[in-house]
Amino acid sequence: MNKNILGVDVPESISGLGKLKAFNGKRFSGTAHEMPNIKNPDQRMSKIVDNLESAIHLSGLKDGMTISFHHHFRNGDYIVNLVLEAIAKLGIKNLTVASSSLTDIHRPMIDHIKNGVVYRIETSGLRGELANQISHGLMEVPIVFRSHGGRAYSIASGELKIDVAFLGVPSTDLFGNANGFSREGDNSSACGSLGYAMVDAKYAEKVVLLSNNIVPYPNTPCAIPQTDVDYIVEIDAIGDPKGIMSGATRYSTNPKELMIAKAAADVMEASGYFEDGFSFQTGTGGSSLAVTRFLKEKMIRKGIKANFALGGITSQIVKLHEEGFIRKLLDVQSFDQDAVDSTLKNEFHHIVDAHFYAGPGVEGAAVDQLDMVVLSALEIDVNFNVNVLTGSDGVIRGAVGGHPDTSAGAKLAIIVAPLVRGRIPSILDRVNTICTPGMTVDVLVTEQGIAVNPARQDLIERLNTAGIKTETIEALKAKAEKIVGHPNPIEYGDKIVGIVTFRDGSVIDVIRQVSR
Amino acid sequence: MNKNILGVDVPESISGLGKLKAFNGKRFSGTAHEMPNIKNPDQRMSKIVDNLESAIHLSGLKDGMTISFHHHFRNGDYIVNLVLEAIAKLGIKNLTVASSSLTDIHRPMIDHIKNGVVYRIETSGLRGELANQISHGLMEVPIVFRSHGGRAYSIASGELKIDVAFLGVPSTDLFGNANGFSREGDNSSACGSLGYAMVDAKYAEKVVLLSNNIVPYPNTPCAIPQTDVDYIVEIDAIGDPKGIMSGATRYSTNPKELMIAKAAADVMEASGYFEDGFSFQTGTGGSSLAVTRFLKEKMIRKGIKANFALGGITSQIVKLHEEGFIRKLLDVQSFDQDAVDSTLKNEFHHIVDAHFYAGPGVEGAAVDQLDMVVLSALEIDVNFNVNVLTGSDGVIRGAVGGHPDTSAGAKLAIIVAPLVRGRIPSILDRVNTICTPGMTVDVLVTEQGIAVNPARQDLIERLNTAGIKTETIEALKAKAEKIVGHPNPIEYGDKIVGIVTFRDGSVIDVIRQVSR
Repeated sequence: MNKNILGVDVPESISGLGKLKAFNGKRFSGTAHEMPNIKNPDQRMSKIVDNLESAIHLSGLKDGMTISFHHHFRNGDYIVNLVLEAIAKLGIKNLTVASSSLTDIHRPMIDHIKNGVVYRIETSGLRGELANQISHGLMEVPIVFRSHGGRAYSIASGELKIDVAFLGVPSTDLFGNANGFSREGDNSSACGSLGYAMVDAKYAEKVVLLSNNIVPYPNTPCAIPQTDVDYIVEIDAIGDPKGIMSGATRYSTNPKELMIAKAAADVMEASGYFEDGFSFQTGTGGSSLAVTRFLKEKMIRKGIKANFALGGITSQIVKLHEEGFIRKLLDVQSFDQDAVDSTLKNEFHHIVDAHFYAGPGVEGAAVDQLDMVVLSALEIDVNFNVNVLTGSDGVIRGAVGGHPDTSAGAKLAIIVAPLVRGRIPSILDRVNTICTPGMTVDVLVTEQGIAVNPARQDLIERLNTAGIKTETIEALKAKAEKIVGHPNPIEYGDKIVGIVTFRDGSVIDVIRQVSR
Repeated sequence: MNKNILGVDVPESISGLGKLKAFNGKRFSGTAHEMPNIKNPDQRMSKIVDNLESAIHLSGLKDGMTISFHHHFRNGDYIVNLVLEAIAKLGIKNLTVASSSLTDIHRPMIDHIKNGVVYRIETSGLRGELANQISHGLMEVPIVFRSHGGRAYSIASGELKIDVAFLGVPSTDLFGNANGFSREGDNSSACGSLGYAMVDAKYAEKVVLLSNNIVPYPNTPCAIPQTDVDYIVEIDAIGDPKGIMSGATRYSTNPKELMIAKAAADVMEASGYFEDGFSFQTGTGGSSLAVTRFLKEKMIRKGIKANFALGGITSQIVKLHEEGFIRKLLDVQSFDQDAVDSTLKNEFHHIVDAHFYAGPGVEGAAVDQLDMVVLSALEIDVNFNVNVLTGSDGVIRGAVGGHPDTSAGAKLAIIVAPLVRGRIPSILDRVNTICTPGMTVDVLVTEQGIAVNPARQDLIERLNTAGIKTETIEALKAKAEKIVGHPNPIEYGDKIVGIVTFRDGSVIDVIRQVSR
């Protein structure tokens, strides 16, 4: 028997229950600020720490660990550079950086790679000088490219274990209820959805929030709940507002893009999936975005509404929602200011995390309930494989994003692309990098014709019945080559600089070093 | 090298990345309905299975495992009895039942205990014949009583591992986005918040939802997201609507309760915590509920508003919110129909899970941000320890609930109780069962006087300065004994039938078998 602090005799153990702890009247330790008393009427519990160095120290970050970031601040992001600089100063080395994406602004990471602070990188995309140098062999270990759903799955399944997540947030209270906007007025650094960051917050061992905007408790509703957060650092600026968020996304006025968009909308209408309660996703590319406009006309004509729209949400989608054409929006990433404003004011504009959006596990994801998706491509090949990652020179300058997730999940995946871009054909014998396997792609729409994956004879029949002409992708390729000729193959070295994984973490393709 | 299905040579392993999987073009298995193809345009992925037996089978439930339930359907709940009957028929034995609470309607569990299906129980409360028989020695292993926060913490920390959670939900879509109400009209079985169930859904190995109400995808916003759900069973009824939810909770007209409530509100006003932006929680007991009314008058007079109200939400709290006196509601359990309706219509009436509400871990909980809480008690002793679990005959007939969580978290914890109940005094030398340690309790308010915990001299001073008379708890006890005399001690046997744990899982008290 042990006497607990209240004088009760507590058995050391009870059969069926095992060992028992006796109540000791003390509070848990381990908080940002020690609160030894079981009750603290004079002290408000808080997770705010003095500075970033303290947070890094408290997080227990050590050599060889994995840290993570989100890319909701896009090319305005200050967080990655700020945190890596602080970590470098503390002398911590050999880290894996698992960011949901990386872009031009992260050029300073080149030095951290050279100095041994960053050992390897996982990301959905890579652009700018960092991407260029990596394509030319900067790193010892290849980049692991994951789709948004694949990244979420790797984190949720434990394949990718994040030790410390450093997450910039446009608002948080003292406990870490955080959001991509603020209800208290300061929305200069708002980003809307925090869908990618939510997964990191949920699964990382330790979570450090960085924010310029500490608001009264409770900062609800919130994207990241306090239960997922360990430490909070107040900083002057989380990013450059101009880089974080653009104004409203504009519709294309490019006639070729509009032609493609109209044809894609015709395909959707005739596909058999354009029924009341349908669902869809469109990207931000010129043609993809413009599809929305033509879709609206068709919805009015047929008298139907969509149950939900998914994905990166744009002002066009918000407008359709506000006009009553789409019942609900599931938003993993808000693409413009109208989308951010909508997350604040529209009850059925929901912020969803990347796992909910596209995680390929047994839980299923929103993409698995998707009827139709319209996706862009840098290249597509005769097997309908799509490249959205490497340029025609073999250099990395893109992002896998949700491309393979939505393509595999949707009943109808439409690729929109111009037949040629400048002197470069879009249709090849073999794309330089496979990001989305052709077996998940259904239709290619160009301004000069439509090709359906031969695996979808049902679709060919339905389109032809509706009077939409289809042809083989080889025929489209021939048209392209008639204009710009057959492209010369890229010269690669042997060294693998990146691997492209599918949603389940298996390898779809490898990216080799560019020779020149 | 392995060639993947796209013909790409994939190295067996890469230094720094380890072994690589080659893409095989197949879909994950393990879903409720096998979908072997990477893309399934003809089949909608769904988690709905044929019946409860299939779900139990698919969940992998085996002898000796732990299953869990929630108590949001209160005394109208059909789920616990339904699931245990199905499990008993399948011959599965020796289970631990971890329910957020149990009550009168769960009497059939007595037979499952006798037949060896149920080996041990964890719960916040226990009432009715099941409680009576357990108090008289029905079970071999003692019940583990946990507070709402303690239960959430034990689950989140892995101390209590749930193998399969069986969760009744008033609405869900085919993927498991579930809610305590329905936006599609059928709210006959609505329960509002699913705060306790959310923790089980998040942490259980397998999650089976049972619902009478499958609604179109996506059932958002939702309390339980699809990412937490494995299987869904459609059943005719999840509970008796009359037992699940009462109409609006009424204010007391009992003069003694009103007297206590007014005194408690006076204490709150004079405590130093009644400032603009304050926060509070009141329970559903007559006096506790009535405090809300007096508080409103004081808020008007002082011209202040509350930042949030927490806990079980009642129509009274909803009304204050709708009138603008409380900015936000954090709702772990909706106590009446007005609260349910409010979760549907009020944007800042938030459903929070039990971990967010009261989990005592390093993450902190909403109770840690609470200024004031008003709590009922069956008994309180001269050390301010409170019993809310066992009656004056020693038989279990109550629930720990959020009592110790809020008491420890709030800056000011007020216990309201009548000096005597019938012939039984409320103040004892030692409560029969300690549920909330006196070191977390600040004030006792009775209709015949107010006693402050001597540890809070600051509070005594503030109350006295405001003209509120306080006395020692011993003096109040003497008043009670003057009316009803000194109670005879309960005769207990030696056998321990229950252990009462504090928020951290340590043992506060043990409950012994009742002799007679």
